[in-house]
Amino acid sequence: MTTTRLTGVLAPVITPFTPDLAPDAGRFVRHCRWLLDHGCRGLAVFGTNSEANSLTVEERIDLLEALVQGGVPPETLMPGTGCCALPDSVRLTAHAVKLGCAGVLMLPPFYYKGVPDDGLYRSFVEVIERVGDARLRLYLYHIPPVAQVPLSLALIERLRRAHPRTVAGIKDSSGDWANTKAVLDAFAASGFDVFAGSEVFLLQNMRHGGVGCITATGNVNPGAIDRLYRHWETPEADRMQAEIAATRAVLQKLPMIPALKATVAHFAGDPDWMTVRPPLVALTRDQQTLLVQELRQRGFQMPDLAA
Amino acid sequence: MTTTRLTGVLAPVITPFTPDLAPDAGRFVRHCRWLLDHGCRGLAVFGTNSEANSLTVEERIDLLEALVQGGVPPETLMPGTGCCALPDSVRLTAHAVKLGCAGVLMLPPFYYKGVPDDGLYRSFVEVIERVGDARLRLYLYHIPPVAQVPLSLALIERLRRAHPRTVAGIKDSSGDWANTKAVLDAFAASGFDVFAGSEVFLLQNMRHGGVGCITATGNVNPGAIDRLYRHWETPEADRMQAEIAATRAVLQKLPMIPALKATVAHFAGDPDWMTVRPPLVALTRDQQTLLVQELRQRGFQMPDLAA
Repeated sequence: MTTTRLTGVLAPVITPFTPDLAPDAGRFVRHCRWLLDHGCRGLAVFGTNSEANSLTVEERIDLLEALVQGGVPPETLMPGTGCCALPDSVRLTAHAVKLGCAGVLMLPPFYYKGVPDDGLYRSFVEVIERVGDARLRLYLYHIPPVAQVPLSLALIERLRRAHPRTVAGIKDSSGDWANTKAVLDAFAASGFDVFAGSEVFLLQNMRHGGVGCITATGNVNPGAIDRLYRHWETPEADRMQAEIAATRAVLQKLPMIPALKATVAHFAGDPDWMTVRPPLVALTRDQQTLLVQELRQRGFQMPDLAA
Repeated sequence: MTTTRLTGVLAPVITPFTPDLAPDAGRFVRHCRWLLDHGCRGLAVFGTNSEANSLTVEERIDLLEALVQGGVPPETLMPGTGCCALPDSVRLTAHAVKLGCAGVLMLPPFYYKGVPDDGLYRSFVEVIERVGDARLRLYLYHIPPVAQVPLSLALIERLRRAHPRTVAGIKDSSGDWANTKAVLDAFAASGFDVFAGSEVFLLQNMRHGGVGCITATGNVNPGAIDRLYRHWETPEADRMQAEIAATRAVLQKLPMIPALKATVAHFAGDPDWMTVRPPLVALTRDQQTLLVQELRQRGFQMPDLAA
C-alpha cells in the first residue's frame, strides 16, 4: 500500500447491477472514474452504500480487479474487506494489499451481537497477522446503526497499541457527533485518521482534527462536498456546510441506496442503474421523478455523467 | 429432498475448529453421529450456534460433503444456507438439495436493518426460483435478537402463497412465546411446521400444533429433550419440561456457544473442542470447571462421547 494517506472526500461507491442482478463492472469503472474527476479523492468501494455485503467474495475480487485494470489508481482505493467469516476478511484484505490499495475499511464480524471487546480485538488482529504485510493500512468501520456491533474507544486504543503502523484510522458512521469527537480527542493528534461517516459532520470533523469524510452522497454530490473540504478554514465554510447538508436531506427522505442509484440513473440517462439487490427495493419511477424534481429545484447537477 | 418432514429435536450442531481455527471435519462427523444416536432426529448444521456465519461458503460446502461421505443420512440434515449475498444463499441451497438434505434453514439477508417486507420476500423468492428444484424444503429462520431482521406474519403468508410446497416451516428463535403462538395459530393447521427456537418452549409448542424444537442445548442434552418430545402428552411432561429448562439455565449463565463447546470438550476428553472463531471468546478453564461441576451436580452426563 502507499505511504501517502488518503484524505478528503471518499465515496462508498454504489455498485451497479444488470437486470439479472449481476454486478456490472463496466458501469462500475465508469462511475469510479467520474467520481475521481469530480471531487472524490478516494473511493471506499464495497461499503454499506455499495451493497457490499450483498456481494460474494469473488464478486468483490473481480470488481476490484476490473477497477485497477480499468485505470483507476489503486492508491485512491479503500475497499471494504470486513466480513463475518475470518478467512473471507483475510482473503479480501490480502488481495487489496496485493493490488496496491491505499487501505482497507474493515467492518467487525457483524452477525453475533454483544460480543466482548476481546473477541473483536482478536478478529482484527487475526486478519492483520494472517495478511502479514507491512503495507496494510487498516481503517476501522464503526457503524452501529447497521452492523449493530460498535467499536469502543478502548478497543481502538488496544488495536493501535498492538499494530500502530497498520491501524491507520476510522470511519465513524455512528451518526453521533459526541462519539466522533471522543475519537478525535483521544487519537487524532497522534496520527489516527478520522473520517466522518457523512458530510453532515465534515466541517466539525475538520475543525477538531479529522481528515475528511466518507459519505454516501459523495456518489452524486462530490464536487460541493470537496469544495467544503478544500475551504473549511474560510468564512464561507458554514454556508457551504449548510448547503451540502440541505442536498443530503432531500436524498435522505428516501432509502439512501435506492435514492442514490435513482439519481445516477436519471443523470446518466441509464435506467438500469436503478437496480438494487434484495433485500433492498428500488425506487419506483414516481419516487425517482419527485426526487429529481426536488434536486433540480436546488440547482443540483451531475455534469458529464451521461454516457 | 425427502418427502418425510423432519420433526422432533434438532441440534444446531456446534462446529469444531483446530487450534489454527480451521474447521475440523473429523470431529464434526463424530459429533453429528453422536447426536443422532442420542436423541436428535435431525441436524440443523450451520445455524447460529454452529458459528456458521463465521464460516466461508466453501467451508460449509466441504463440511456438508464430509458429513454425507461420513455416513450421516442426508434426510436428517437441515443446513443453514441463508447469507447476506444472494448468490451465496443460492449456491449453498442448491448444494444442499443436490445432496438430498431434508430441508434448509434460511436466515434473511442480515446486514441491512429495517428493510421492507417486499425486499425480504424477493430475497427468499429469488433463492427458491434460482435453485429451481421441486425437492427444496425451505424453513424460515426468525431470530431477531441476533439477525435483527424479523420475519413478519404477513411475509410468511405471502411466501407460503407463492411457494406452498417449498416454504415448509419455521424456526422461531424470537424467544417470545407470543410470536410463536401467533405463527402456530395462523399456519400450523395448514401444514406449516413450527419448530420452537429452544427447548424452553418445546412443550407449549407441541401443545399448540408445533413439530419440535431446534435448540442449542440439543448439542449436549439431546436425550432428555427428546424424551419430552416423545412423551409430551403424558402426565410427566411438565416435570420433564422443568427439568430440561433447569439444565439449560446452567449453561445459559455463560455465553452459550463457548459453554456448549466447553461441555463437549470436557465430556469428550478433548480440549481442542473449546476453540471458537473470533469474534467469540472461549471459556477459561476455570469457567469450564465450574460449569461442569454445576452440570454434574444435576446428574448431567454425555454418555459414549469420549473418543
